[in-house]
Amino acid sequence: MKAIKTAVVGASGYTGAELLRLLLMHPAAELVCVTSRQYEGEPLEKVFPRFRGVQGSQLEFTAPSADTIAAAGAEVAFLALPHGVAAEYAIALLEKGIRVIDLSADFRLNSAEVYEEFYGHPHPAPELLDEAVYGLPELKGRSEAIKSAKLVASPGCYPTSIITPLVPLLEKGLIDPASIVTCSMSGVSGAGKTGNVLFSYCEANESVRAYGVPKHRHLSEIEQELSIAAGQAVQISFTPHLVPAHNGICTTTSATLTGDADAIGAALEEAYGGSDFVRLLGKGQPADTKNVTRTNFLDIGWDYDPRTGRVLLLSAEDNLGKGAASQAVQSMNLMFELSATEGLQNI
Amino acid sequence: MKAIKTAVVGASGYTGAELLRLLLMHPAAELVCVTSRQYEGEPLEKVFPRFRGVQGSQLEFTAPSADTIAAAGAEVAFLALPHGVAAEYAIALLEKGIRVIDLSADFRLNSAEVYEEFYGHPHPAPELLDEAVYGLPELKGRSEAIKSAKLVASPGCYPTSIITPLVPLLEKGLIDPASIVTCSMSGVSGAGKTGNVLFSYCEANESVRAYGVPKHRHLSEIEQELSIAAGQAVQISFTPHLVPAHNGICTTTSATLTGDADAIGAALEEAYGGSDFVRLLGKGQPADTKNVTRTNFLDIGWDYDPRTGRVLLLSAEDNLGKGAASQAVQSMNLMFELSATEGLQNI
Amino acid sequence: MKAIKTAVVGASGYTGAELLRLLLMHPAAELVCVTSRQYEGEPLEKVFPRFRGVQGSQLEFTAPSADTIAAAGAEVAFLALPHGVAAEYAIALLEKGIRVIDLSADFRLNSAEVYEEFYGHPHPAPELLDEAVYGLPELKGRSEAIKSAKLVASPGCYPTSIITPLVPLLEKGLIDPASIVTCSMSGVSGAGKTGNVLFSYCEANESVRAYGVPKHRHLSEIEQELSIAAGQAVQISFTPHLVPAHNGICTTTSATLTGDADAIGAALEEAYGGSDFVRLLGKGQPADTKNVTRTNFLDIGWDYDPRTGRVLLLSAEDNLGKGAASQAVQSMNLMFELSATEGLQNI
Amino acid sequence: MKAIKTAVVGASGYTGAELLRLLLMHPAAELVCVTSRQYEGEPLEKVFPRFRGVQGSQLEFTAPSADTIAAAGAEVAFLALPHGVAAEYAIALLEKGIRVIDLSADFRLNSAEVYEEFYGHPHPAPELLDEAVYGLPELKGRSEAIKSAKLVASPGCYPTSIITPLVPLLEKGLIDPASIVTCSMSGVSGAGKTGNVLFSYCEANESVRAYGVPKHRHLSEIEQELSIAAGQAVQISFTPHLVPAHNGICTTTSATLTGDADAIGAALEEAYGGSDFVRLLGKGQPADTKNVTRTNFLDIGWDYDPRTGRVLLLSAEDNLGKGAASQAVQSMNLMFELSATEGLQNI
Repeated sequence: MKAIKTAVVGASGYTGAELLRLLLMHPAAELVCVTSRQYEGEPLEKVFPRFRGVQGSQLEFTAPSADTIAAAGAEVAFLALPHGVAAEYAIALLEKGIRVIDLSADFRLNSAEVYEEFYGHPHPAPELLDEAVYGLPELKGRSEAIKSAKLVASPGCYPTSIITPLVPLLEKGLIDPASIVTCSMSGVSGAGKTGNVLFSYCEANESVRAYGVPKHRHLSEIEQELSIAAGQAVQISFTPHLVPAHNGICTTTSATLTGDADAIGAALEEAYGGSDFVRLLGKGQPADTKNVTRTNFLDIGWDYDPRTGRVLLLSAEDNLGKGAASQAVQSMNLMFELSATEGLQNI
Repeated sequence: MKAIKTAVVGASGYTGAELLRLLLMHPAAELVCVTSRQYEGEPLEKVFPRFRGVQGSQLEFTAPSADTIAAAGAEVAFLALPHGVAAEYAIALLEKGIRVIDLSADFRLNSAEVYEEFYGHPHPAPELLDEAVYGLPELKGRSEAIKSAKLVASPGCYPTSIITPLVPLLEKGLIDPASIVTCSMSGVSGAGKTGNVLFSYCEANESVRAYGVPKHRHLSEIEQELSIAAGQAVQISFTPHLVPAHNGICTTTSATLTGDADAIGAALEEAYGGSDFVRLLGKGQPADTKNVTRTNFLDIGWDYDPRTGRVLLLSAEDNLGKGAASQAVQSMNLMFELSATEGLQNI
Repeated sequence: MKAIKTAVVGASGYTGAELLRLLLMHPAAELVCVTSRQYEGEPLEKVFPRFRGVQGSQLEFTAPSADTIAAAGAEVAFLALPHGVAAEYAIALLEKGIRVIDLSADFRLNSAEVYEEFYGHPHPAPELLDEAVYGLPELKGRSEAIKSAKLVASPGCYPTSIITPLVPLLEKGLIDPASIVTCSMSGVSGAGKTGNVLFSYCEANESVRAYGVPKHRHLSEIEQELSIAAGQAVQISFTPHLVPAHNGICTTTSATLTGDADAIGAALEEAYGGSDFVRLLGKGQPADTKNVTRTNFLDIGWDYDPRTGRVLLLSAEDNLGKGAASQAVQSMNLMFELSATEGLQNI
Repeated sequence: MKAIKTAVVGASGYTGAELLRLLLMHPAAELVCVTSRQYEGEPLEKVFPRFRGVQGSQLEFTAPSADTIAAAGAEVAFLALPHGVAAEYAIALLEKGIRVIDLSADFRLNSAEVYEEFYGHPHPAPELLDEAVYGLPELKGRSEAIKSAKLVASPGCYPTSIITPLVPLLEKGLIDPASIVTCSMSGVSGAGKTGNVLFSYCEANESVRAYGVPKHRHLSEIEQELSIAAGQAVQISFTPHLVPAHNGICTTTSATLTGDADAIGAALEEAYGGSDFVRLLGKGQPADTKNVTRTNFLDIGWDYDPRTGRVLLLSAEDNLGKGAASQAVQSMNLMFELSATEGLQNI
């Protein structure tokens, strides 16, 4: 099998490191270029001692540059860069015929206006928004769109855990779109590899707190996809929390049932019963982050509370995995006509 | 100052240990009797090595018995026993003229029927329900009731964090009582000192999950107190979660605003502005469990989301502190006409 | 490639689960039988929700029995059983021509007398001691012995981290065998999947302590292998500690230098320079458990303190990996003439 | 009781915060001045939300200046500053007649040469070295010296846990001074309140590693005090480790017995049997950091290994407590003729 030649741009953070880990182990992919201004000239295995001695880990970081990436023969580049910065690399790489999987927020929104509202600056490349595919392969028809995409916008961590269980219920009109309330709990790696003292061990340990309320940036892509599913504009209440764990997101969403309670499980089953990565736990079964860390699985349980008439959707994923790096690799697999699970079966 | 003679019944779990810690340090209280079947005959300091060498820690555990407690001269007894069991000790102790602060659920509900619905067995002492005071001293008039009470039912951990911020808003009609959705996150000590492998280090670490849905027992007392405040029957959606922390509860409650957003802060300020233990953080300020562990503080922040019209109430407490042991000591202080903060000022 | 048919006996603990994880992912092995009295009749994926949906995870636990294992066609059986119990299964399986990799202590010692001294009961199968190979493949000649072994005694977790760095120095006479002092720190999974409240989250979290002093059972195999290397009887001072981590062992060993300090690095390089799994970090480079968890790597750094004349050996491994399950799989690879790294390259 | 007027200089780190916590709660002390360049003008309770609402927490940080401290009427100043910086404040404060308790390393060593060797720059105030008292009150005669001291050098965290158990054995000649090997494990707060990514939650969690070998700076004061006790120059092998805990130090020291094993317990008992803060656990009893965090206790257990002839000393303390802040408060109590345990009895 000919290996796909891959590049990772901005590979020094947690999402970048997880991409490297997955690509180093991937049986049908090869890392040909990794970039990091901070670590230019250093081999992967020096920056990430965990990778020492692994085949491919002697590759050296280069400064980020579309020319360098093209010269290395990359067929696809993963962008693990801040929003705003990612777009300029995407433009340059696409021009050179290199397909792009962007893990930033730059191409997740269909609307440049919404982007500016949530991200606080004009969209850096509005002309590419039409071309970009929001890379949540489990959504209807999305897998096919990803296969032929030149530019995939890989979803955010919270959105993946929130959108996936809600979409089938909204599509079938089983819940009231105006009643959705979501609480998510994220491990600390969601804050990135940072020197911010707020995320130091002694501050984050034994600390549980909400943050980013009431208008977290991820709402923009969440509401975009929920609105598509509902066929009407949807706005939700979303409160993210930071909890003392390395990785993992646990999401609890509730919404008022408008249909038949028995239809909930059936709708989830119809949407995801044959999915490679969505695991349906069934009624009354909460999802536990412990079971999905370092995998591409998204676990979904659900329940119904007849007292309040509300449906509960309980989901768990790895914020660095299905919420970021492994989901991006899943898109790569689709784009290069591999099995969706190639290189993503580790548990 | 004459020290209050206190007993702790069922002192070997986490709530019991926290009671012992607070009473050993309390400047106006003295432990005269501690009971535990498991540790009968052993001194406190042997069972809890943390207490070694502290004055009073040589006291030996006795088998639980109202006679023994009375013989020791106890004026007040804290019951840290399972529901169902606590009631029988309460009866026997009250008969001997010993005041009782019960940390179980046995006397929290006004209705024996609701008790049976939620706890699965008939109420063991329905004749005492009228006499018992639900010991959340911050509620209006509750402090006065506690002062003269013979039997205080100390609130549950989740309820304290949920009821306290909601009550002023319901009393003033600022939110729609039918719209309340609550997510709480509790540290593992909430599961008790247990050999259940589910709560072993390796299972609970790096694990975040919902549990006990959709009808957690604490709903009964939560809804009782919210209904009183609202002047109408209230039912809420409540999802507790287990997070990898020792102690602390972080609660996020949202509800649809029906009044003026500016009135939220004012209502909280009016209710708790002069409180010893409720700390108002203000608008946009999430509460962090880190700041309240091992204290009797309940921190409350809030926010308003004009997009969804929902109010957010963000609260944090120590599940073993304001959610259990220190709140019970606060009641004791009131019952014996001490300053409410006596022995509860440690940070 | 024809898959090796494997069985795991006693698969419900942490070592068993790690074996299952490795064998489910192994490209050249197939699980044909897993046993557990506790979980008889339940599929793997129900007992270990992490494995849900993974190929092979529908296999059901059976009661442990050599007949059942043989009937399933197993070519090799891993025993993840308590010492004393493992031996009887080993005897029965060997009689049926099934090769055995025992992860208990039953066959690690050459001497039945030493076994009885350290384990407190007569050896259950002394006649097999000669046949058993102590399965630390990095030791000289050991790899060859494992290849043809019918019975491999896979080393204990602490011993692997202690023996490996010391052996080359003892063989070359670079340190005084009477001067060896070792401190190890283990994550809580080393205590097993247990309902013992000592290892509950709330007890083990924020707790660091020594235990099992001064004569931990693992000393028996440590001293056996060190004595072989030194060509004389060696006894060491060994203090294990429990630290609040899930997995990983960090070991610090010091010994008085009797040779040339420059020879230390050279001796390690000569012994392990070409090793697949021992990673030499060099002088002044401490090993971090973070870099080896969930791998079969053993990282070794070292230093020399001219003030005290002592050499420091700093090693790290995963107690469930190189210290147990993945090391056992490494032996399987050797026994079945696979590449040593087959199925063990995940990072 | 007239309150002692106290100042804390450099109060924004973890040691500073623990000092503030202890002084805010101290029944016989009052904070009159707290300094921090970073937080000048902000009240304590804003910088440390944990202190919100506590009496005294409205005090504002000022820029550090001896004049300001004197103007506030401080009788004693605690210096929680980096070494090198502390000395200049000590000089200025002493000149103004303010007694100084320095928590940095500046005055711990009797020898300016040793200081320069270990700290890499000339001693900033060698003329004060004679006057300074090494503030480990449990050492013989040290309590008396502290009472009359103008300048107390409060010991380092590791040294307190290492020196205390060793001194009585060295004084009685029970162990070979040349044979001492120490391993310590510290929680992450030992690294200070820092934005260094190495100590971020995601890096420090699930990470156990040695560091600072082979010549940690604390060796200078350790060996100074051990040499005094032994009556001869002592050098030890010391390896500190970082473990994933907030606070606490666990220390294991071994040394060759040269006297009678029975004399070990007796020597410890003679030295510390009546101590307020050293708790002797007895033979075979490891010390657990869990029991001493947030206290001024130092727990000591011990054992003897007849196989190797080595004594084991097992100690635990809070690195921020007995290893820093509470030990400094203990010195203050002595200097102002309070009971040694005043304000230090919380558990």
